[in-house]
Amino acid sequence: MFKETNLRSIAKGISWRFFATTTTIIIVYIFFGKLDLAIAAGIAEALSKIILYWIHERVWQRLRWGKKMIEPFNIWFTGLPLSGKTTIADGVYKKLKSMGILVERIDSRDVRKLFPEVGFTREERNRHIKRIAHLVGTLQKNYVSAVCSFVSPYVESRDYVRKMTKNPVIVYVKASVETCMKRDYKGVYEKALKGEIKNFTGISDIYEEPIDPDIVIDTEKTSIDEAVDMVVKYIKSKYIK
Amino acid sequence: MFKETNLRSIAKGISWRFFATTTTIIIVYIFFGKLDLAIAAGIAEALSKIILYWIHERVWQRLRWGKKMIEPFNIWFTGLPLSGKTTIADGVYKKLKSMGILVERIDSRDVRKLFPEVGFTREERNRHIKRIAHLVGTLQKNYVSAVCSFVSPYVESRDYVRKMTKNPVIVYVKASVETCMKRDYKGVYEKALKGEIKNFTGISDIYEEPIDPDIVIDTEKTSIDEAVDMVVKYIKSKYIK
Repeated sequence: MFKETNLRSIAKGISWRFFATTTTIIIVYIFFGKLDLAIAAGIAEALSKIILYWIHERVWQRLRWGKKMIEPFNIWFTGLPLSGKTTIADGVYKKLKSMGILVERIDSRDVRKLFPEVGFTREERNRHIKRIAHLVGTLQKNYVSAVCSFVSPYVESRDYVRKMTKNPVIVYVKASVETCMKRDYKGVYEKALKGEIKNFTGISDIYEEPIDPDIVIDTEKTSIDEAVDMVVKYIKSKYIK
Repeated sequence: MFKETNLRSIAKGISWRFFATTTTIIIVYIFFGKLDLAIAAGIAEALSKIILYWIHERVWQRLRWGKKMIEPFNIWFTGLPLSGKTTIADGVYKKLKSMGILVERIDSRDVRKLFPEVGFTREERNRHIKRIAHLVGTLQKNYVSAVCSFVSPYVESRDYVRKMTKNPVIVYVKASVETCMKRDYKGVYEKALKGEIKNFTGISDIYEEPIDPDIVIDTEKTSIDEAVDMVVKYIKSKYIK
């Protein structure tokens, strides 16, 4: 919850006083034609009103009326391992944050580290995504938006996201298995090919392409910066007025 | 994220103008001794400044400086089934909400309904609480406080709460098994005694009393209203200045 500090109210009072007293002096001068008296009246006015303005600010600070929340959204990046989800999502998050939007970044990497017992079977993956969708929904109830990146390879998983979160924006980060394998700096595709990682999406597990994504990013043709801009522009036009 | 509407800025401008112009008229009258001219100057001032004030408000609305967030807390109710956790927690939540605090209510009942596959073994319960603690931690990162009620019968579970959330306030809702059985309107104790519910805390599973709770509520001696007041008072004195 935002609370305005006393210092902010005082600073606003001073900045307002600057404009207001200048205006008063000009008006009084126009009416009475005496500059010295006009300035004296201006000084008397400034001193009395700086206190009055501060009181006025403190009273208004207690009123909630007219303070509006931004409609929270949920940007959900899906795609093969190493398709570029995390990188683009990080960029989008940074940009939105810099715009002063209350937003949380949720990445598969961090969540799985915290809950290592979650496996990669179809059932476990779906349950995992359902939990994340619940987390996002709870954040949104409190006006917090989310930027999520999860392989989320199944239709059902993405259905949970659509059903359990507000204003879902499904972003399909597209890249062929071959391209992702070329980017394999983590060596995960290699391990999956050797059979050292089981249920690896793209190799030993299926990736069901989203049928109705809100945004498609072809990472073989689009740069990271362009992709970030694309998503931020979409959010701006739809949810930030 | 809070955003001030245009209407709020205009209303503030008008309410301010009332006080400010009255002050100006009095000052000009004191300096020049002419009431009619003082009022005319006051009117000219009012008209020009209502617009100036509105512009001033819109500019300040873009500045984040001096807007402070309340330090988020996590009130965690633990105790036997039917000890009174949910009822007291609901009361506390309602009271905090009415004070304008950004707070989320998380109850075992709702979460378990959503994830029915979670069992009641020691391991499953601990994992469940760890997930809730993660949810609360994420909310708190976004300035949202929490009021949670879970049996959370084990020391480890409550340790997760202490470690993974900010400003945890553990509230031990105390009642003997006998008392809880008398309140058994749900018939759950009866079922547990017959062996129809397994791992039922208090009957077929242990409740490890908290060693260092922040608040203890003896529900055999304290009314619901008193209990709610106790917790709210504690929160007020510690986290709301």
